[in-house]
Amino acid sequence: MAGIRTPRKIAEMGDVMPAVYGEFERIAERLERHYRDMQDLEFTIERGRLYMLQTRSGKRTAAAAVRIAADMVDEGIITKLEALARIEPAHVDQLLRDQYDPAALRAATRVAKGLNASPGAAVGRAVFSADDAVAWVGRGEKVVLVRIETSPDDFHGMAVAQGILTARGGATSHAAVVARQIGKPCVAGCAELLVDYATKTARSTDSGGSFAEGDWISLDGSTGEVFAGSVPTVSARYEDQHDLQTVLGWADEVRRMQVWTNADKPEEAALARSYGAQGIGLCRTEHMFREGERLDIVRDAILVAFEATRAKERRAAGEALDADETAVVARFDAAMAKLEVLQQGDFEGIFRAMDGLPVVIRLIDPPLHEFLPSHEELLEQVVRLRTLGTPEADPEYAAARTLLAAVARLREQNPMLGLRGCRLGLMIPDFVKVQTRAILNAQIAVKRAGGDPRAEIMIPLVGHVNELRVTRRLLEAEAKAVEAAAGVTVDYKFGTMIEIPRACWVADEIAQYAEFFSFGTNDLTQMTFGYSRDDAEGGFLLKYVEDGILPENPFQTLDDVIVAEMALAVEKGRGARPGLKVGICGEHGGDPASIAKCERIGLDYVSCSPFRVPVARLAAAQAALVSTAERDR
Amino acid sequence: MAGIRTPRKIAEMGDVMPAVYGEFERIAERLERHYRDMQDLEFTIERGRLYMLQTRSGKRTAAAAVRIAADMVDEGIITKLEALARIEPAHVDQLLRDQYDPAALRAATRVAKGLNASPGAAVGRAVFSADDAVAWVGRGEKVVLVRIETSPDDFHGMAVAQGILTARGGATSHAAVVARQIGKPCVAGCAELLVDYATKTARSTDSGGSFAEGDWISLDGSTGEVFAGSVPTVSARYEDQHDLQTVLGWADEVRRMQVWTNADKPEEAALARSYGAQGIGLCRTEHMFREGERLDIVRDAILVAFEATRAKERRAAGEALDADETAVVARFDAAMAKLEVLQQGDFEGIFRAMDGLPVVIRLIDPPLHEFLPSHEELLEQVVRLRTLGTPEADPEYAAARTLLAAVARLREQNPMLGLRGCRLGLMIPDFVKVQTRAILNAQIAVKRAGGDPRAEIMIPLVGHVNELRVTRRLLEAEAKAVEAAAGVTVDYKFGTMIEIPRACWVADEIAQYAEFFSFGTNDLTQMTFGYSRDDAEGGFLLKYVEDGILPENPFQTLDDVIVAEMALAVEKGRGARPGLKVGICGEHGGDPASIAKCERIGLDYVSCSPFRVPVARLAAAQAALVSTAERDR
Repeated sequence: MAGIRTPRKIAEMGDVMPAVYGEFERIAERLERHYRDMQDLEFTIERGRLYMLQTRSGKRTAAAAVRIAADMVDEGIITKLEALARIEPAHVDQLLRDQYDPAALRAATRVAKGLNASPGAAVGRAVFSADDAVAWVGRGEKVVLVRIETSPDDFHGMAVAQGILTARGGATSHAAVVARQIGKPCVAGCAELLVDYATKTARSTDSGGSFAEGDWISLDGSTGEVFAGSVPTVSARYEDQHDLQTVLGWADEVRRMQVWTNADKPEEAALARSYGAQGIGLCRTEHMFREGERLDIVRDAILVAFEATRAKERRAAGEALDADETAVVARFDAAMAKLEVLQQGDFEGIFRAMDGLPVVIRLIDPPLHEFLPSHEELLEQVVRLRTLGTPEADPEYAAARTLLAAVARLREQNPMLGLRGCRLGLMIPDFVKVQTRAILNAQIAVKRAGGDPRAEIMIPLVGHVNELRVTRRLLEAEAKAVEAAAGVTVDYKFGTMIEIPRACWVADEIAQYAEFFSFGTNDLTQMTFGYSRDDAEGGFLLKYVEDGILPENPFQTLDDVIVAEMALAVEKGRGARPGLKVGICGEHGGDPASIAKCERIGLDYVSCSPFRVPVARLAAAQAALVSTAERDR
Repeated sequence: MAGIRTPRKIAEMGDVMPAVYGEFERIAERLERHYRDMQDLEFTIERGRLYMLQTRSGKRTAAAAVRIAADMVDEGIITKLEALARIEPAHVDQLLRDQYDPAALRAATRVAKGLNASPGAAVGRAVFSADDAVAWVGRGEKVVLVRIETSPDDFHGMAVAQGILTARGGATSHAAVVARQIGKPCVAGCAELLVDYATKTARSTDSGGSFAEGDWISLDGSTGEVFAGSVPTVSARYEDQHDLQTVLGWADEVRRMQVWTNADKPEEAALARSYGAQGIGLCRTEHMFREGERLDIVRDAILVAFEATRAKERRAAGEALDADETAVVARFDAAMAKLEVLQQGDFEGIFRAMDGLPVVIRLIDPPLHEFLPSHEELLEQVVRLRTLGTPEADPEYAAARTLLAAVARLREQNPMLGLRGCRLGLMIPDFVKVQTRAILNAQIAVKRAGGDPRAEIMIPLVGHVNELRVTRRLLEAEAKAVEAAAGVTVDYKFGTMIEIPRACWVADEIAQYAEFFSFGTNDLTQMTFGYSRDDAEGGFLLKYVEDGILPENPFQTLDDVIVAEMALAVEKGRGARPGLKVGICGEHGGDPASIAKCERIGLDYVSCSPFRVPVARLAAAQAALVSTAERDR
């Protein structure tokens, strides 16, 4: 403390003017006790007399903020609650980001300095256009995108770059706003930098330093500094940060809401658990579909899924299938059986990592075409082969045509509002059956090995109670078959996402079939605003935020209308099922301002990405303190 | 009346058993007076004694129903209100559909008879697959699609056919449900028909009649009959239907809600007015963009719209433009000026047709790519030319590449949730300015010619009050400029669509800037359910309705949650602006069940397609009667 608040030159004052210095020390201590915080003091001494000019709470780095708070509690100046109120969630976030190695940074050559527009360290090779950024990244390079200023046309380059550097524009410029939105470090408005697109070079008029396309540069988005070369970074290790752990321990004593995590793999789950996650709020099964050999199996299943399902329905109705239909069913069932084995293994890993804690597993959600090759690439291939006069029977041409036709059948005008979520399971019931078997058999296996697996199965995109009712019936029949085959009973919970606006209005009906709700606020925001996030964030939404039409990006912080919809769902849901467990697993679950809103409407937990878990622990504690204070008022 | 309820064989009874016949006549009349409706009577005579077995209200054709109701009022048996309650809106609909010429029908050869699955007359050449249907229609032919049964794979063929005929399936079969959804006549479950896909022929096992691909056939979806050849139809002329006009006149005395129409052209407006429309509730300006030479002008404007807008912004900020930028601005302004002249002419025509009645004009709404060539066709063209080794400078190749790049930039993942509606006007303000000038100058011109034009300008897709506030400011500035140039003031109203779920929750804020609301229930349903209508109706939504997951198609009849959102908006909107005028212009505005829901939440008017106006007049009257009865209870 003393070292921080009394730099050496003030300490020297003690030798020169001992009386005045003594007086200064007494006033400073009194002010700190009064404001219960480190103070930045301004004063002057005229003719041996001390005049205090101004005092305000001191600015500090993240590490200092946490350190000071912990020290002040130790010294009895403030309580734990006051310490918690004083630390900003952004501080916790900063402590967990990779940072430049301090020694390396001292040795590095600073080329220029601009505005610290979006925090974090970005190291990459300089490129001077968005198209170049995409091209270099396509070759496996890391790049920093350097522009005089950015416009919506640069978005594709910003999205692939490590960081963004602009010569023009302030904290609300296009570059700055987009960079913060997509979580990329950015130094903006670096006016001393002369950027020349023709020669693909940049030169500082202040330092004289320069770099050209392909040269390594290192940005510090937290300070606005730009360094030549590739400055090494050090990863921030949570386990080394004892002050942070202490403070978050106090947060855990105070907060009412639990903090869970969104994790699809055992290693993510383990990381989040080390950060204090108390469960998995969202395990996306389809992420498991995309790896290596699995994608081929998934594609094989998808290509015949509808045909096979119709054939199975006819068979169930007593009709005989012909040889073609029998073959299609066999091909589909074989692919699904392989998937079941792979998914069971995945779930076993997750259950082991989260032993004793709840794991919410969401059944398959995205539109099926996301697992197939792109329509555009297939079309190009087919047109090329056709133009070359390739014979119809040519194997490559025939395969491409078949695949193109399959992809064309699955294509939708607005896939976000199309065949996905529970709609998929109702059209192709085998998706629900196979995933149910994989989850329950994984539970049985882990439990037999002495573990404590706690599955909660979650149905996505429910808008009408009948969707959940029918899916539940399907799932329970399959679960009973698994239990009968294994000769055991399996504990699992059954619940639903609330992410369709309609679901909020009929949450009382839905709660009759759901043991828990989890708000999918990404989709709820998309549909309530009528914004496709993919289209809006690089386009009109950015301009809306820049121009003040929207106060903030509703995909970052929960809009109050979304909160009103959620409150309606909580009220109706708990009205129909007292004690209904309600959480949030949209990205807002890691945003402090949104966490405060979740506290106000009485959610049981927030779930966020592993790296946001510590931030969420603090934010949930602060939200609880505010709620308590409001109740006491 | 007598002729209908006493067919000749019963009349003959009077000669044979005069006493019993006299008793029968007395009982029949008493029953009709009691039930106040035409009765179907079942009786038997045993040993000279009359036994009445059953009585029930008689089934009747649409013409008979209207005729009987009018006659019973004339005879003093029922009141006008009872007559209104008794006629079904479907009767009115049937009276306005084209029907087969009765003489021609008597002369026609009936081939077969199935279920009357979806009403109306369909005449076309027989085709036996959906792909054939599309191919024949592509050559300018009218077709009737003949299938053993239909599946979702047939949807593209059903959509282009005049009507659908199936050998299998009942009233809830795929063919029947889809046909009703898309408004096509359908005869389903025509079991006597042997359909052979291999030879593309069909033969009736009952009549022995047959037809092959390309033969003309005529379906009557109201009776289930199938005729050989092209049976001539007669159009149903409203002006000849005096009974209907009488009954609808009573409806007009009773109903509280006005009935407006959705019309984009003067001739549609005139037709709707002849049917009794009291205003235009939706005039879609973009439909005017698609005709003939206009499309080229629109495309020219769109291709440079963003570049020109950015250049104009820079110019407004005092920056100098280079030659390229100046040229782009000039090209854009020239195209927009041409459009302005054309649109002003359109509006003048509409104002003249609706002289003295309100005309709600919606500013441009759809995503811009809808006006450009398809991405797929352009991509095929570019890949073909590339594969052929076409030189880069080749004019066709260069033009295709330029256009493809432009279309690719405008493409969106989910255009329904993308850059459209008011978002477009906020990104490219010239769209708002040019349309405002065209509307106001059209009003000035029509008024100077002695007319009484009443424009109401409507902003689509508003979700946040600031969108409306900023658009209104932009529009009013332009309106003032027009007024100043013309030296007159122009009366117009300013209002908004309510079609984004969020807008319902903040309708009080929005009402501060809107003089009227119009519910766009198509989009409101899409977003509240998370359904893309284009994708859902041919796919999972159909299965949902077939399987009873949804009680009905929410795009046909307003779902109760949509009604709850609308009620919230009405309450909040009128709370902030008493007397706020509120209507509906989604397709639900022509659906009787939905009209009843609109009455309950107090809308001022419903707006529907011209042909639905008479139906809506009756339905609005019936809804008012029910409301009055409910209030009186």
